Amino acid sequence: MAGALPRSPLAPETFPDLPQIDGVTFAAAEAGIKYSGRLDVMLAICAPGTSIAGVFTKSATRAAPVLDCQAKLGGEQDAGAAILVNAGNANAFTGRNGVDAVAAVVDATARATGLPADRVFTASTGVIGEPLPHGRITAHLSNLVTQQSADAIADAASAIMTTDTYSKGATQTIDVDGQPVTLAGIAKGSGMIAPDMATMLVYIFTDGQMTQSALQDLVRDTSDATFNCITVDSDTSTSDSLIVAATGASGVDVTGNTAFAEALYAVMLDLAHQVVRDGEGATKFVEIEVTGCTDKTAAKTHGLSIANSPLVKTAIAGEDPNWGRVVMAVGKSGAPAERDTLSIWFGETLVAENGWVSPTYREEDAAAHMKQDHIYIRVDCGMGDASATVWTCDLTHGYIEINADYRS
Amino acid sequence: MAGALPRSPLAPETFPDLPQIDGVTFAAAEAGIKYSGRLDVMLAICAPGTSIAGVFTKSATRAAPVLDCQAKLGGEQDAGAAILVNAGNANAFTGRNGVDAVAAVVDATARATGLPADRVFTASTGVIGEPLPHGRITAHLSNLVTQQSADAIADAASAIMTTDTYSKGATQTIDVDGQPVTLAGIAKGSGMIAPDMATMLVYIFTDGQMTQSALQDLVRDTSDATFNCITVDSDTSTSDSLIVAATGASGVDVTGNTAFAEALYAVMLDLAHQVVRDGEGATKFVEIEVTGCTDKTAAKTHGLSIANSPLVKTAIAGEDPNWGRVVMAVGKSGAPAERDTLSIWFGETLVAENGWVSPTYREEDAAAHMKQDHIYIRVDCGMGDASATVWTCDLTHGYIEINADYRS
Repeated sequence: MAGALPRSPLAPETFPDLPQIDGVTFAAAEAGIKYSGRLDVMLAICAPGTSIAGVFTKSATRAAPVLDCQAKLGGEQDAGAAILVNAGNANAFTGRNGVDAVAAVVDATARATGLPADRVFTASTGVIGEPLPHGRITAHLSNLVTQQSADAIADAASAIMTTDTYSKGATQTIDVDGQPVTLAGIAKGSGMIAPDMATMLVYIFTDGQMTQSALQDLVRDTSDATFNCITVDSDTSTSDSLIVAATGASGVDVTGNTAFAEALYAVMLDLAHQVVRDGEGATKFVEIEVTGCTDKTAAKTHGLSIANSPLVKTAIAGEDPNWGRVVMAVGKSGAPAERDTLSIWFGETLVAENGWVSPTYREEDAAAHMKQDHIYIRVDCGMGDASATVWTCDLTHGYIEINADYRS
Repeated sequence: MAGALPRSPLAPETFPDLPQIDGVTFAAAEAGIKYSGRLDVMLAICAPGTSIAGVFTKSATRAAPVLDCQAKLGGEQDAGAAILVNAGNANAFTGRNGVDAVAAVVDATARATGLPADRVFTASTGVIGEPLPHGRITAHLSNLVTQQSADAIADAASAIMTTDTYSKGATQTIDVDGQPVTLAGIAKGSGMIAPDMATMLVYIFTDGQMTQSALQDLVRDTSDATFNCITVDSDTSTSDSLIVAATGASGVDVTGNTAFAEALYAVMLDLAHQVVRDGEGATKFVEIEVTGCTDKTAAKTHGLSIANSPLVKTAIAGEDPNWGRVVMAVGKSGAPAERDTLSIWFGETLVAENGWVSPTYREEDAAAHMKQDHIYIRVDCGMGDASATVWTCDLTHGYIEINADYRS
């Protein structure tokens, strides 16, 4: 399936030129887990001293690798760390067999890398409920170790794709007292995308230095404002994982550094947007800003209700400025709203205010905006000062085509 | 738009032969509100002594007619009642103009029928945000009154349709100590269908006798088990209304009568299923039973999470027994679940148990079931004794076609 889909019309022109991150190397292999003729396994090795932070799906039916990673967070940093990811099989809902498969992959990776097993973080993405053919992964481990390269992050980004139509990467470099600190990240995801949490696989590496607990707090907060604000189809995966590895190799302590926090936010937001832009069947990138709410949670609830509404998403696909459906989605969200204080904009066009269509509204203005491939919808609830922004894509025939026939 | 769509493949063969209900008459007219050449307004008149109960959308952006009806519930029964409904314009999010339009229609109906204004219940369905051309409705009122007939309920069912591909009716007759008591109901709805509440327009009439407060309690409870257990697209309308009118003309007091409660349940469930069967683009009727839960709310939460999952719905459209997506939907619902105590059936086929695929599972068995047009999915959570059943339809290209181009 992977590779069979045309590249999303919303894709960036090219994969970015990602810099080396001191203290991290990568390799990828064709293990033939489900696909043939493509990279489907990647191994990243982080130097001793690396802090590993992560956030994971909140699903009650989490996959075995997710549970294994969660148990390992906060462990010994001196040992370094390995991240091993396969595509094609999610090792999810595979019972005892799934736990054993994780143990087999972790143990083999620990042996091959010389790292302790509790510093090996794995993830699997692809079909649910089928046994992971872990022997196909472990057979490649010694090559994956010997072929490690600081330049192979783009291969790693390719190896973790499933229905993605392009590989996803992002980078930022900041200056801290004359010292550069660099971040580079990769992600995969295009369907089964919704908050809660990373809702995809994301790996971000930096040579900045930070304790695990400080990094964990920063990653959790930044994830809430980025990956937890995107949705493609309201479906939450059982496997999704975000890991941030700070090698500290730059020698620059970035704890509490605002520029570093902003750079991490920029990398996460860039990757989150790339996931939405690869939303299955997407033809429009949609930004929804909700302002004037009693609190931030209410604003995000309204935003996600609009973003997940099939009627809103199909209207956007049809380039129809159907603000009535936006009113409907606000009304059903469960968060506080007052019909007669709502205002709605499509692009720069004020569409509705005071509980009705604006007297200045001309449908041709909103209709012109709907023809763009970046749609901006703003809703002001007129009740307070809190706001939130979420991002989604439209719901098209392409989504049906991909998901009515494809067994991911 | 109405009439332009092919009849749903899941439609009943014919509209049922609905009996007269003593104490109720109907008439319908072509008012040209939005459509031409079809009935689009209906007036039902109930005799003095009729109890009127109702449940309405919980949307925070309810339409003006909904707010008007809610304020009138529990009023004087001796006066009789009128129900006036138009299709083509929802009079929703129409600000002060919408309130005035309701008042104009109510006052004209009161004058034409001789009923007090607080016994006139109206509803509007169709496009949101456009002013209701109420003059087109009121121009027909004197004809609607003079043409009243006990036999015209089928015309009323036709007049309230929007994107419906067939009109919907259901009936039950019970025997209470040798006396017949009859119920007949009509409904409209095919998109923007989700709990909370009626999520469509439903009018049910009976010649049974019951006080308003007893009828209200019964209607609320029965609605929770029927209309609040269906979903087409998770979108909740701003206009949806369910009204039950008990004329008492049979002279039979049905307060606390189990057979009557069961008959009302049967009529509501029949109409609810007909709405699902007319779900926009539907090709499969899907019944989802969730058992083994800690409480009924958890069971319904899991059921609706499965029923509303775009990935589950597209898999059903593709006749794919993709039980991994069912696991995912249970996991994301937020209600209690244990991965390793879940069991899943497609039809009679046990697919998964103990956190993994069943050893007896053969995909061809489940695949054969998926080719039916009535799909049955059962999930047992293995955690308790509570259960719930919900109903939905698949998500197809037809849904996209209807909603990407149609301004309802």
